[in-house]
Amino acid sequence: MSSEFRVGVLGRGTVGGAFALLLDQHADRVERITGMRPVLAGVLSRAGDSPRFEQLLEASDLIVELIGGIEPARDYVLQAMRSGRHVVSANKQLLSQHGEELFEVAREAGVQLRFEGAVAGVVPVIRVLQESLAGARIDRVHGIVNGTTNFILTEMARAGITFAEALAEAQRLGYAEADPSEDVDGRDAAAKMAILARLAFDTPVRLDQVRYEGIEQITPDDMEYARELGLGLKLIGTAERIGDGLSVRVHPAFLYPGHPLASVHGPFNAVTVESPEITEITMSGPGAGGAQTATAVLGDVVSAMIPPATAPMATQELELIDDVVSAFYLHLEVADEPGVLATVARELATHDVSVKSVVQKGLGDQARLVMVVHSVLESRFRAAMDEIARLEVLRAPPRAIRVLEEEFG
Amino acid sequence: MSSEFRVGVLGRGTVGGAFALLLDQHADRVERITGMRPVLAGVLSRAGDSPRFEQLLEASDLIVELIGGIEPARDYVLQAMRSGRHVVSANKQLLSQHGEELFEVAREAGVQLRFEGAVAGVVPVIRVLQESLAGARIDRVHGIVNGTTNFILTEMARAGITFAEALAEAQRLGYAEADPSEDVDGRDAAAKMAILARLAFDTPVRLDQVRYEGIEQITPDDMEYARELGLGLKLIGTAERIGDGLSVRVHPAFLYPGHPLASVHGPFNAVTVESPEITEITMSGPGAGGAQTATAVLGDVVSAMIPPATAPMATQELELIDDVVSAFYLHLEVADEPGVLATVARELATHDVSVKSVVQKGLGDQARLVMVVHSVLESRFRAAMDEIARLEVLRAPPRAIRVLEEEFG
Repeated sequence: MSSEFRVGVLGRGTVGGAFALLLDQHADRVERITGMRPVLAGVLSRAGDSPRFEQLLEASDLIVELIGGIEPARDYVLQAMRSGRHVVSANKQLLSQHGEELFEVAREAGVQLRFEGAVAGVVPVIRVLQESLAGARIDRVHGIVNGTTNFILTEMARAGITFAEALAEAQRLGYAEADPSEDVDGRDAAAKMAILARLAFDTPVRLDQVRYEGIEQITPDDMEYARELGLGLKLIGTAERIGDGLSVRVHPAFLYPGHPLASVHGPFNAVTVESPEITEITMSGPGAGGAQTATAVLGDVVSAMIPPATAPMATQELELIDDVVSAFYLHLEVADEPGVLATVARELATHDVSVKSVVQKGLGDQARLVMVVHSVLESRFRAAMDEIARLEVLRAPPRAIRVLEEEFG
Repeated sequence: MSSEFRVGVLGRGTVGGAFALLLDQHADRVERITGMRPVLAGVLSRAGDSPRFEQLLEASDLIVELIGGIEPARDYVLQAMRSGRHVVSANKQLLSQHGEELFEVAREAGVQLRFEGAVAGVVPVIRVLQESLAGARIDRVHGIVNGTTNFILTEMARAGITFAEALAEAQRLGYAEADPSEDVDGRDAAAKMAILARLAFDTPVRLDQVRYEGIEQITPDDMEYARELGLGLKLIGTAERIGDGLSVRVHPAFLYPGHPLASVHGPFNAVTVESPEITEITMSGPGAGGAQTATAVLGDVVSAMIPPATAPMATQELELIDDVVSAFYLHLEVADEPGVLATVARELATHDVSVKSVVQKGLGDQARLVMVVHSVLESRFRAAMDEIARLEVLRAPPRAIRVLEEEFG
């Protein structure tokens, strides 16, 4: 029987609730990965209730801080680390304003302080800067680190509406808070860029050193001219070396369509890390949301529990499947005579293969029939192809290539 | 003074050489992160030299295996773990064919076995599946995991050349090996998908259970028809739940232009992980290359040395810079009279601000001048804007938004 690992949670909001649920659902898997079973030591809902905090601390091996804001979060995190507990936090305000103090106490106490959830949710940008790229010189980190503003800008561009209209839509869908000021004025993104700059460049960067501008001033007019000029608008955070210095800033910026961040739409975040050793890595995904942040927090808890020895023991639940559904491109070199399309279409229909689009090309010896068929079980498509291959009107064996049908974002 | 952490390297090829160099260059930083100084215990160049291997093992705290292939790599890795050494490997053949044996020995010995470099180079897909998403149910992992074939397909589409011509180009540029068969027939991608499927689904998956097809059969004709149908061609690896089963496969597939993998060009890799809890994360970057794989290996070494307590101590080398270079979009509401453009252009020229494009729009009270200017130091652009704001021909304050000029991919 393996031992227990007790996780105390500060904060009973959306993320706290989602985290408690996830911890319970995935306890078996975490035990297989780490050799210890995670259990919820308790959840402290009321900020500032010190006696109850001290009780929870006593009963926990690790503290998850999801209170937000500076106090009492700072005090609790410092107390937890000084008493030898690892801490996982998703608190970007705290880390961007008191990072050095927290990092120093963690080092002195020999405990881990992890905070993947503080920037870009479960998109692993903190982990990559701290571990994957520990052996790379980083020149620039930039990206879209606020999902609220990216949603608003996406809607303004898509629907030609004003900032106020898009903000109302974001609030209705839960992508913006009742008081959205820290998101739309760029301060939230600035806090995240301060954290990323600190990790990428080993230089202390506080929120108040980051220049930021928001998107409140953007008009539908700007969006329309931008479209004429072939540009899209994003709120971009940048931290980059310039000579022997460092620039950290957040501002709206137009992007040409070939830019990798131009295709990041809606509430998604994306961060690119550039280094001469590796060229660049780009990571994207949903930037926030209770479940996403809770997943990031649980990932940090797992990393803090024990470095995974390796892959968890296989549970062998899944059977390997060979026959799957796919759309197909079908290329036929055919005789140039009437009725060929009808003959081919009949064979496809017999096997329940449905045609999406057809192109007929060429004459005589160059005649070709190229089609895309809708998603179908591969065995059924292959059976139709075998029949088609036997048709006298074919001048060469048929050729097929799969088509990924789904559309994204 | 902190203690030393001795790293023994097996293999003296491109990656081994790049790794030894990186370890030396970044020893200070790794020491700041982990509290221990990494030192090279030795490099074993000759495969199969057992007495020398045992000497190196004795002198090492961690073994980096970069020999490739099955034997003697398997034997050395097993010996190293059984003797209590952590192992970092970039060997996809070994992991996709003998993964369960290796994972079991690592668990029994209580050591770490890390292998980020085996799939998609420094793109952190292994780390994300093992740690970040430990608390997520994964439904699908799919992507482009072979850079050689992606380069070939990109060139075929771009230049309208044959597979053989694009392969020759890839070999000339070092993106394909002299014997490219494992890349172009899909086997390399299949090995990587077996590893990813194992981690995502906790189900043992061996290379010989993965269905794969390569790209040798793709013709310029396919590419041309695809373009007419609005499709792009990629070699796609997929591992996905289907009911209670699992499908793992590699095959060429057409993608619609909105698909996030459609814009991954040249030798780049990209992997998307889908989970109901988090929607999806996409990671992309250079898939291979000595420096990239060496960087991934060093990232694994750092993670194995000690879980980073937190951010490394700040070295405070970089000054924070405020005035940076940018291109700008400039929006002017102007009087509808002759000479306005000339007046504005003169002010810009006075401050060395160079115009890239101009749109004049509207009449009378609606007249507008919208322009994009080339990259310029922001202070200089602001000075020009201050002058322009004072012009009598302006009906409203000028508005400016930054433009990110660089093109990617």
